[in-house]
Amino acid sequence: MNTHWWAWPAATLDRQAAEAAHARQQTLTKPPGSLGRLESLVGQLAAWQGRACPQVDRAWISVFAADHGVAEEGVSAFPQAVTGEMVRNFAGGGAAISVLARTLGATLDVVNLGTVNDPGQIDGVLRAIIAPSTANFCHAPAMTRAQCETALRIGAERVAQARAAGADLFIGGEMGIANTTSATALACALLGELPRTLAGAGTGLDDAGIARKIAVIERALRRHADAVEPIELLCRLGGFEIAALAGACIAAAQARLPVLVDGFIVTAAALAAVRMNPSVRDWLLFAHRSHERGHARLLDALDADPLLDLGLRLGEGSGAAVAVPLLRMACALHAGMATFAQAGVSEKTASSAEIPAESVS
Amino acid sequence: MNTHWWAWPAATLDRQAAEAAHARQQTLTKPPGSLGRLESLVGQLAAWQGRACPQVDRAWISVFAADHGVAEEGVSAFPQAVTGEMVRNFAGGGAAISVLARTLGATLDVVNLGTVNDPGQIDGVLRAIIAPSTANFCHAPAMTRAQCETALRIGAERVAQARAAGADLFIGGEMGIANTTSATALACALLGELPRTLAGAGTGLDDAGIARKIAVIERALRRHADAVEPIELLCRLGGFEIAALAGACIAAAQARLPVLVDGFIVTAAALAAVRMNPSVRDWLLFAHRSHERGHARLLDALDADPLLDLGLRLGEGSGAAVAVPLLRMACALHAGMATFAQAGVSEKTASSAEIPAESVS
Repeated sequence: MNTHWWAWPAATLDRQAAEAAHARQQTLTKPPGSLGRLESLVGQLAAWQGRACPQVDRAWISVFAADHGVAEEGVSAFPQAVTGEMVRNFAGGGAAISVLARTLGATLDVVNLGTVNDPGQIDGVLRAIIAPSTANFCHAPAMTRAQCETALRIGAERVAQARAAGADLFIGGEMGIANTTSATALACALLGELPRTLAGAGTGLDDAGIARKIAVIERALRRHADAVEPIELLCRLGGFEIAALAGACIAAAQARLPVLVDGFIVTAAALAAVRMNPSVRDWLLFAHRSHERGHARLLDALDADPLLDLGLRLGEGSGAAVAVPLLRMACALHAGMATFAQAGVSEKTASSAEIPAESVS
Repeated sequence: MNTHWWAWPAATLDRQAAEAAHARQQTLTKPPGSLGRLESLVGQLAAWQGRACPQVDRAWISVFAADHGVAEEGVSAFPQAVTGEMVRNFAGGGAAISVLARTLGATLDVVNLGTVNDPGQIDGVLRAIIAPSTANFCHAPAMTRAQCETALRIGAERVAQARAAGADLFIGGEMGIANTTSATALACALLGELPRTLAGAGTGLDDAGIARKIAVIERALRRHADAVEPIELLCRLGGFEIAALAGACIAAAQARLPVLVDGFIVTAAALAAVRMNPSVRDWLLFAHRSHERGHARLLDALDADPLLDLGLRLGEGSGAAVAVPLLRMACALHAGMATFAQAGVSEKTASSAEIPAESVS
């Protein structure tokens, strides 16, 4: 059988490492379970990294930028030139994700997949132009199958680079004017939801703008109602950066590299990836609950319970970057706390039934 | 008028600095408001610190340890010896808060206010013994008025030390076997709530243990039903560490030092502080929603919306410490991001009404 690379199974989790991490947690000087999510996180990281004491020292952030043909429908609060302008800002260090990557000591990998306002060659930006923009999916498929496969492969190649650089965590980010429209259309098609259920303000549409966005997505869904397969829906309604993110999720899961998923758009890409290859789900950790309206529904569909809920809706991978210190603190606590035996601290009373009844009379 | 120091008004907020921070936020290369809570946090920090670009470089963590007479009623899953044992573990670097303080580069100040199992003189622990334990509040007031005032003053002194050391954020933590029982009793009395509404598992009681804890608190509330004033309730039902935390909250607010409030017990202390001096509320930031049952009600009473919800229930100030990187990242983004003008990025379209109607037909 000649299956496509994206259908190859994800790596298996290391249950033994997870159990060893769990066993260590029980010996540390704290009531069992009292670190809540930070304890379960360590178990997940152990299963992904195959070691009882996981670390998140080398986070890798790939930000994929691309323009969208559907922007011509007036679905964004910002002009399309911003996509190219922001590519320069990512590399120049002035964007939110640039600041966060510096703060975290993470690698920031910026990939230009095609912008209408072409910033040209820029130091620190990988130029991997597929086209200046996708097609307007109100009238045609956003991508040809070849374009979509190229974007998937570029995402996979960034994961290979991250792996080669010794990364222990992968974060995908995105930039693309009108890409909440693309992500919403794709999510509606994948989930069978109505645009009015999932469409939100994006970068800051008013109510009239959201109504226009809903009408545009409704038109697009009618135009592409014949498509069924997840990869076909990705071609029809996605974007270069969304396809690259889906490819990155799949390749990371295959390469034993956990993915910390950002907000609405990356979650839509992750949903496409999981529909293309369900085994990918095991390698996804969800960073935050976005303020964008449809995110909750996407998270439900992926059975995801994000770490943070801070009203973020910026994209770029910023919400995932903000969650990285939580993973690091979970790992530091796990590795650095003393055990009851080491510290000479008494353990929990076996059962409260041991306490004499008269003491409570 | 000869008012007590704890009734002196809190410092006023610097609204001008908050406005300057807000104005800067509007110029940074992101959709306005898209950093959600991280944007409003910067405004709050600016108002507290009196500067448009706030920082949280020097966090100070004071952990107050003390034993509780009510422990003899069998209300904890751990033996009372643990309080003293953990004092040694804090100083030895093996406790959760020790690891987190190291990770954050924060000062860890450990204060022993009195433990039944006395660990003696320990390097890195301030010995400020009030008594080996409070009295069992089922039978007598937990503290004399003099003991309570001493504890309040010790809390205030730690704030003065933090201030002198240049701290820009104060975190209070606690350790004391049976102190969720004390905090729950105090909160019930302050809020007029029933014990069964607020009492939870603490460090890990089973259902029978929680039932016993509720019965103990019910007895205590009947015993002290004549007390009304917040400081009197604190004397009757609190603990040395809870009073010290209340004193620290008040003194910090008076000294322009923002307080990052930890979980259930510190919130109960903060509630007592706010009831003793309502102006204190303006200086409190709530770090996390504890897994302990009654915390949500306490947060509501303080109109608090914590930053994190990770199922933590450890105490020691650990939940507050875990939230510090969020504040730091908010400050780093605010100081480090480029403005639209600096980056040459186009701003938001003034109104989506400008987009011609035919583009959406």
